[in-house]
Amino acid sequence: MIIVMIPSATDQQVATVASFVERAGLKPHIMNGVERKVFGVIGQIDREFEQQAERLEGVDFVQRITKPYKLASREGREASTVKVGNVVIGGPTCVIMAGPCAVETEEQLMESARIVKAAGAHMLRGGAFKPRTGPYAFQGLAEDGLKLLAQARDATGLPIVTEVKTPSAVELVARYADMLQIGTRNMQNYDLLIEAGKSGKPVLLKRGMSSTYEEWLLAAEYILANGNPNVVLCERGIRSFEQYTRNVLDVAAIPVIKRLSHLPIIADPSHATGKWHLVEPMSYAAVAAGADGLIIEVHPNPDKAWSDGAQSLTPENFSKLMQNLQKFAIAAGRTL
Amino acid sequence: MIIVMIPSATDQQVATVASFVERAGLKPHIMNGVERKVFGVIGQIDREFEQQAERLEGVDFVQRITKPYKLASREGREASTVKVGNVVIGGPTCVIMAGPCAVETEEQLMESARIVKAAGAHMLRGGAFKPRTGPYAFQGLAEDGLKLLAQARDATGLPIVTEVKTPSAVELVARYADMLQIGTRNMQNYDLLIEAGKSGKPVLLKRGMSSTYEEWLLAAEYILANGNPNVVLCERGIRSFEQYTRNVLDVAAIPVIKRLSHLPIIADPSHATGKWHLVEPMSYAAVAAGADGLIIEVHPNPDKAWSDGAQSLTPENFSKLMQNLQKFAIAAGRTL
Amino acid sequence: MIIVMIPSATDQQVATVASFVERAGLKPHIMNGVERKVFGVIGQIDREFEQQAERLEGVDFVQRITKPYKLASREGREASTVKVGNVVIGGPTCVIMAGPCAVETEEQLMESARIVKAAGAHMLRGGAFKPRTGPYAFQGLAEDGLKLLAQARDATGLPIVTEVKTPSAVELVARYADMLQIGTRNMQNYDLLIEAGKSGKPVLLKRGMSSTYEEWLLAAEYILANGNPNVVLCERGIRSFEQYTRNVLDVAAIPVIKRLSHLPIIADPSHATGKWHLVEPMSYAAVAAGADGLIIEVHPNPDKAWSDGAQSLTPENFSKLMQNLQKFAIAAGRTL
Amino acid sequence: MIIVMIPSATDQQVATVASFVERAGLKPHIMNGVERKVFGVIGQIDREFEQQAERLEGVDFVQRITKPYKLASREGREASTVKVGNVVIGGPTCVIMAGPCAVETEEQLMESARIVKAAGAHMLRGGAFKPRTGPYAFQGLAEDGLKLLAQARDATGLPIVTEVKTPSAVELVARYADMLQIGTRNMQNYDLLIEAGKSGKPVLLKRGMSSTYEEWLLAAEYILANGNPNVVLCERGIRSFEQYTRNVLDVAAIPVIKRLSHLPIIADPSHATGKWHLVEPMSYAAVAAGADGLIIEVHPNPDKAWSDGAQSLTPENFSKLMQNLQKFAIAAGRTL
Repeated sequence: MIIVMIPSATDQQVATVASFVERAGLKPHIMNGVERKVFGVIGQIDREFEQQAERLEGVDFVQRITKPYKLASREGREASTVKVGNVVIGGPTCVIMAGPCAVETEEQLMESARIVKAAGAHMLRGGAFKPRTGPYAFQGLAEDGLKLLAQARDATGLPIVTEVKTPSAVELVARYADMLQIGTRNMQNYDLLIEAGKSGKPVLLKRGMSSTYEEWLLAAEYILANGNPNVVLCERGIRSFEQYTRNVLDVAAIPVIKRLSHLPIIADPSHATGKWHLVEPMSYAAVAAGADGLIIEVHPNPDKAWSDGAQSLTPENFSKLMQNLQKFAIAAGRTL
Repeated sequence: MIIVMIPSATDQQVATVASFVERAGLKPHIMNGVERKVFGVIGQIDREFEQQAERLEGVDFVQRITKPYKLASREGREASTVKVGNVVIGGPTCVIMAGPCAVETEEQLMESARIVKAAGAHMLRGGAFKPRTGPYAFQGLAEDGLKLLAQARDATGLPIVTEVKTPSAVELVARYADMLQIGTRNMQNYDLLIEAGKSGKPVLLKRGMSSTYEEWLLAAEYILANGNPNVVLCERGIRSFEQYTRNVLDVAAIPVIKRLSHLPIIADPSHATGKWHLVEPMSYAAVAAGADGLIIEVHPNPDKAWSDGAQSLTPENFSKLMQNLQKFAIAAGRTL
Repeated sequence: MIIVMIPSATDQQVATVASFVERAGLKPHIMNGVERKVFGVIGQIDREFEQQAERLEGVDFVQRITKPYKLASREGREASTVKVGNVVIGGPTCVIMAGPCAVETEEQLMESARIVKAAGAHMLRGGAFKPRTGPYAFQGLAEDGLKLLAQARDATGLPIVTEVKTPSAVELVARYADMLQIGTRNMQNYDLLIEAGKSGKPVLLKRGMSSTYEEWLLAAEYILANGNPNVVLCERGIRSFEQYTRNVLDVAAIPVIKRLSHLPIIADPSHATGKWHLVEPMSYAAVAAGADGLIIEVHPNPDKAWSDGAQSLTPENFSKLMQNLQKFAIAAGRTL
Repeated sequence: MIIVMIPSATDQQVATVASFVERAGLKPHIMNGVERKVFGVIGQIDREFEQQAERLEGVDFVQRITKPYKLASREGREASTVKVGNVVIGGPTCVIMAGPCAVETEEQLMESARIVKAAGAHMLRGGAFKPRTGPYAFQGLAEDGLKLLAQARDATGLPIVTEVKTPSAVELVARYADMLQIGTRNMQNYDLLIEAGKSGKPVLLKRGMSSTYEEWLLAAEYILANGNPNVVLCERGIRSFEQYTRNVLDVAAIPVIKRLSHLPIIADPSHATGKWHLVEPMSYAAVAAGADGLIIEVHPNPDKAWSDGAQSLTPENFSKLMQNLQKFAIAAGRTL
């Protein structure tokens, strides 16, 4: 940690900082700059010590040096892969998860599953527990939806990824699903992260819509620290002033996360844009930037969808996307 | 709802939209503008219909007319008050909740309670369950913390507000606390909102750090729709590009919410700014803008605090703030 | 335009709005919704009328229907191409502009020009007038820099793109350059836009770092409305809460702009990210999303650059990027 | 400056950094942390050196220690006052500048001037050169507007503040105005800042709508460094995801700037909110937070205003605001 004094700090203030550091069992290392005095503080430093130091008289600001996540860090590690059923995320194949926003009916889900499989998807997505902005919207079929998902897996062989919204439901969802999805609104639902960690199931951790890379990796750290190494990150768009798209897909998150962390990362162009006609170009962009996969909303009849119809692809559009995507995956040194 | 066609929409596309609207049991009302055709759609419209309509060929965009929250709306209602113990929020008194970020020890909490009471605070705050960005930070004393809070209430008579993080803990926290706090990271934790609604306890609902006013009022709607009218909103700062302060306290949220909703609203200058020296001016600003109260972090020894030391006031600073605040409260037509 | 009344609007208020509309020579078209009355207003409406209408008693909000830009709109138009020297932007070739952030010396610029040409770039970039955040940083070589750019063009045949910061310098810069660049900080420098419009020279218009798509297209409209059809847009990253990268490259801007406007659009991965190691993946992403070109900072010795060294590519890295980019350009149906 | 190495940095990389620092004439000061090596670099360091250092192999990141603005800094200075005519900004009086968004006609301006003077305003505002988002909106009366402003000053004795948009107009505007306003879109129009600096006239420098405090103070530094000490800052709202208000008035900017800089700071609640009914509470908030003044839009007939009608106060509302504001000014230790 670095403690930067104000230019006009008194000798007394400098001495107080030094003894404050020492009393905490740390080693202060003073540097006399042209304008200011700066302390390097050596030892294991927690966030509380930082906050306390920032209050001391004569201190301008403090700067952390070490990263607060350890298990999620790339430092000294190879890139990880996560296995979901027989699908490997983070390996040579760019993994495509596709399906409807919400599980609505047996017919809708089974048809969706057949469509996405035929087009080449590797996994089936679909929500049984839907976090909805307002209390009057369709909230999902709950366990009945999970059963339909399991039935679709049995019929197609596609592993299932589905959202879990609350800690007490982790056990139930984990019984049916191959991969637990933690949504953007729950990225900092720490009790949920802990339960997902304890479950040992592969987890797809979406980025909070206004979360920094560091906060995201700290959320992953909660899962990892609870004994579950099977974490895949998902960039799904961040909030901005622009309202034409629902969110801004931060494509640069893909190469940045690959530098900061060993965890695989995929992208969700459907929720990021909120518009079906942007899903195709943003899918290509994400794969070109090095994404390990994509999660895409596909619905047999988007104009009858019970949720997120505006962003769902028709079967024809999804099929076309998968064909073109092949070329970008190859250009990126991947297979599809 | 309004459906706006593109200027080049064909007669066929216009006819398709009209019949789509009619099939949904709604009444299309066409207007021929100079450049475009526009449909007014009359009837009860849900979000799914909007999304579906937006996909139709020839449609440029759709615009919702009605507000999606009903119970939280100001329309046709007087401003509400919420009673917590013997304290009334939303009435003539500007209600001050104060205390440490986290409950640490019996001594620390009891001393905090005495300090804030002596300075004139109306309620005691303190966290027993702490949502922390990283898994290695102090996570709170849990039920032991709740017991200390109850003990502090008994000693001082101050009602207690404390955070609940997860649906399954609502019953436990409600047993000890006078008011449940739902934090910024949990504003869209819908299962938690539902449980808080069912509990009937007064709820302090903090704004999500990147939530719009509408999303915030929809979160309140979840609580109200589950039978609990005792909701108080709390503006606590939003995310921006500026990093000097932790967040940007959106002071305008106070008069805006008072226009859109009948619910009381308070402000949290401590978390918004993250710096103790900004708590004082931002407290004055919030009260001047019409806030029904404030929630402020005070710690007997901020430079030894186990969390958020940088933003906690010393007893002396809090006492000074309370004295000056009196003048601003009176200017705003309130008492303290 | 749509005028939405509050649910409790009185008949008198509704009548006042109707006569207000009529007095402006417009036709009010009333719809009686379930909850509210809504006016469709037919005729040519300006921003002032909207603002005035929003103030009337009983009005909840107004919604514009038509887009405020006309010449920049895609409506009824094919995609445009812009010719710069012998280079066509917006056609089958993905156009690469490359070179140093700032023109520093004859040797540095000539070497840069040879390097980028050898690697396959189509145009040379380099700043002679540098907008710098602080007054004490290197501000560019001014006309001497322009002369060096012209010399580099003569030596390599590459057309030159360079920034102009102020209206009075447009004539000077246009004398040397093949394309005028208007930077992010000047996107709403309207006098500059007007002069650039009058010059008739091709203009590269960067997006303001917190500008919406509409504001950006309105800035282009200023140039177009002053008689200059040769406008190319450049997405260069927007401001967000994330500080790891300098800005967030909004890759979705590429397909969105292609839908809203006929103007070509390129991307600037160097300024968007601020880090050289992100330039490569973001270049691939932009081209995959359909960009008509890229503008990339390359410096013979980035660790000696007088500005923006952290984001400049070495000759080796640029050459590698160009080779890989070929594959993505082909996948996107382009040539390089 | 601090240079932080990655944990796995080799001895060779550390040695290279050390010699890189020394070759620049600076002194490297190495600290061996638990996990990493960190260099303190002592000497006068420019932004270019930082960028170059960030590229070196084995470097994780660099951290600047000193602030890049010197003349604008509070360090070692008392708070400044700026005199405009006989009005002192930054002293005991909270200075109110009021008037219409744009100068429209002689009658409108003279009436506005009389109104705001009668209500107690200290200065008259009004735009003769209007920066408008689109090219088809009213752009101001130019010099004719300036003449009317001068006439209004002669009639009322109120000093005039009016916007200048472009460097070449500084001389003209300075001939008529008492204070030059530089708008949010021009905060980083460096040529304009330089001319405003050379003019010596008092300057009202609005914050760029997505500018950090540091960028804002660096913009002020441009004016100061060109020999003009008469700079007043104006917080006028920043961009966010919330669309109900035009911008978010960052009230905390007021106490933050007072800590970082000696320059006076006022607030513009009209442009920040875009809604007349929010001007009153936000005026109170800004003064409560310590603002040295306010700039407020007032129009004799806002529902006939040629620009920004939605945010202008009527004479009655302005008069009421001024009466109530008195109480808040007194509470803040000011007079009005």
